[in-house]
Amino acid sequence: MSERANVVRVKRKVEGAVSAADFEIAAKDLAPLADGDVLVRNLFVSVDPYMRLPLTGRAGVKAPIGIGSEMSGAAVGIVEQSRSPRLAAGDTVMGQSGWCDRAVVSAAALQKLNVDGIEPSWYLGILGLSGITAYAGIEEVIQPTALETLFVSSAAGAVGVLAAQLAKLRGARVIGSAGSDEKCRWLVGEVGLDAAVNYRSEDLGAFLARECPNGLDCYFDNVGGTTLDAALRALRPRGRIGLCGAMSQYNDDNYRAGPSEFFTVIEKGLTITGFNAGMYGAKAAAFLPTLAAHLKAGKLIWHEVTFEGIANVPDAFASLFDGRSIGKVIVRL
Amino acid sequence: MSERANVVRVKRKVEGAVSAADFEIAAKDLAPLADGDVLVRNLFVSVDPYMRLPLTGRAGVKAPIGIGSEMSGAAVGIVEQSRSPRLAAGDTVMGQSGWCDRAVVSAAALQKLNVDGIEPSWYLGILGLSGITAYAGIEEVIQPTALETLFVSSAAGAVGVLAAQLAKLRGARVIGSAGSDEKCRWLVGEVGLDAAVNYRSEDLGAFLARECPNGLDCYFDNVGGTTLDAALRALRPRGRIGLCGAMSQYNDDNYRAGPSEFFTVIEKGLTITGFNAGMYGAKAAAFLPTLAAHLKAGKLIWHEVTFEGIANVPDAFASLFDGRSIGKVIVRL
Repeated sequence: MSERANVVRVKRKVEGAVSAADFEIAAKDLAPLADGDVLVRNLFVSVDPYMRLPLTGRAGVKAPIGIGSEMSGAAVGIVEQSRSPRLAAGDTVMGQSGWCDRAVVSAAALQKLNVDGIEPSWYLGILGLSGITAYAGIEEVIQPTALETLFVSSAAGAVGVLAAQLAKLRGARVIGSAGSDEKCRWLVGEVGLDAAVNYRSEDLGAFLARECPNGLDCYFDNVGGTTLDAALRALRPRGRIGLCGAMSQYNDDNYRAGPSEFFTVIEKGLTITGFNAGMYGAKAAAFLPTLAAHLKAGKLIWHEVTFEGIANVPDAFASLFDGRSIGKVIVRL
Repeated sequence: MSERANVVRVKRKVEGAVSAADFEIAAKDLAPLADGDVLVRNLFVSVDPYMRLPLTGRAGVKAPIGIGSEMSGAAVGIVEQSRSPRLAAGDTVMGQSGWCDRAVVSAAALQKLNVDGIEPSWYLGILGLSGITAYAGIEEVIQPTALETLFVSSAAGAVGVLAAQLAKLRGARVIGSAGSDEKCRWLVGEVGLDAAVNYRSEDLGAFLARECPNGLDCYFDNVGGTTLDAALRALRPRGRIGLCGAMSQYNDDNYRAGPSEFFTVIEKGLTITGFNAGMYGAKAAAFLPTLAAHLKAGKLIWHEVTFEGIANVPDAFASLFDGRSIGKVIVRL
């Protein structure tokens, strides 16, 4: 008898704001294990903004995925059965097993996790994509100094909140934007940002002008769109931007388009550097112990919002875009 | 009796492609010389693509200029009268005296030129804005190496042709785009580019794919628009772009907009650095002797297209955008 699994599939063409109703949960038979495979039972599934991209009609690094397709993504799980000498039943592993509760995966594509004093879910955030992205953006790309002001958009999101704190550890002055007063209070009161703005209720340009009367030095961009335009207007000559996402543009089919104020790059002699976690495969091994040490030493605040059960993965995903969640959104199965 | 001058004025709202009919020549009385002023008779007037920007409806570094306004811009002239101890009648000078045959200018705003073995018109091109822009882009921003391929757009233009040659002097492989077969033959046959494409008759993406099967290393961008998009698609991971103009977008009111394929910057981890001659005021004094030495040693080809007379300044300007001219366009008065 085949092993069974529950998976999340795309139910319909996603138009505009993504919602839980765009997906459905389906049961399916798993393929039998081939040599080298393991059967993994997922403990935690990650939802991340970039997963919106293949749901648009515009191909990028990943091709668009169609109706009926299963959603991919990182998950942490326990090996239930193994036909590989690399992994044994009971091992905790991470891999791209997708939005599902169980999966048959090649052991070679899984990373065995050390869970001694480390929450397994951290590997989907601060010790995973979010941590690598934030660390690379601050320490490799932007490198803000103690004399500079850094603006972080989506500062209460998983990547933004780490970027903001890493910049504070370098001594920079850090200001951020978020989508609610509650998030802004948390950012200034708990996380330690120097100022935060609720972009839904206050004019971002006015905020940046007030906080940076001599011009903004650098900008960590998660969101693109009108926020990137506001930052371009606020940056000082030779200012710099690290660019790792354009989340505000993902809910439409025009996410690839550049900012309206792009010409400012020439006028002010700005530098824009794009980056993503995938570029730092080898270096990430060096980043993560630093992040783990900061976390254990209490130098970094890391906040997770946990949804429960495979049926709630789609809603967890939608919460990334409607601004409900603070920090990293995760689903516990 | 007042001194008289002929000036070029904006005659009507410029819509789409700029044409000579958008301007008119007017005679006017000059103001009397105040202390510190000189009266300059212009020998050469420069026309440059950036002058199109204040003729759009969208404010940038320079505010839009209205109907009836005089056009500004660099010119080289001879001092006819002086009320400044800094300059004497007969001195050759450069300054922002604009599209006119005579002007009253503060001596402090003029640079006295050394014309010993140097053509005065060179100060409006290779030893002026064009040279500074090309040199900064290649030597300070992009810094292509002997192992790399650089793509230069508008490679037969004043800035592009210098950028291409400076990159060749660094040992890089250089390919370029231009708007006619004649220009492409000149670029490969005379200037020494490794390949050139007529973007009006050949697909730019196909050209870049053929010339750079492993991905383009770097791009010197003069033109923006669809050419920038093609370069974004062709660049290798961590490729880099130096950006000094968006000339293909100047004839519409959307010149500030970013490229359609901007998200590629994140996907490939690209770096885009904007620059302009104005940023290199102090360093330019170091750039220009190098350019002058290269020119005298025959290491750089410099080609000027000369229009004659103040009445032809508007047509010279229009020729920058319709692709008629090769190299630097200048007007001799």
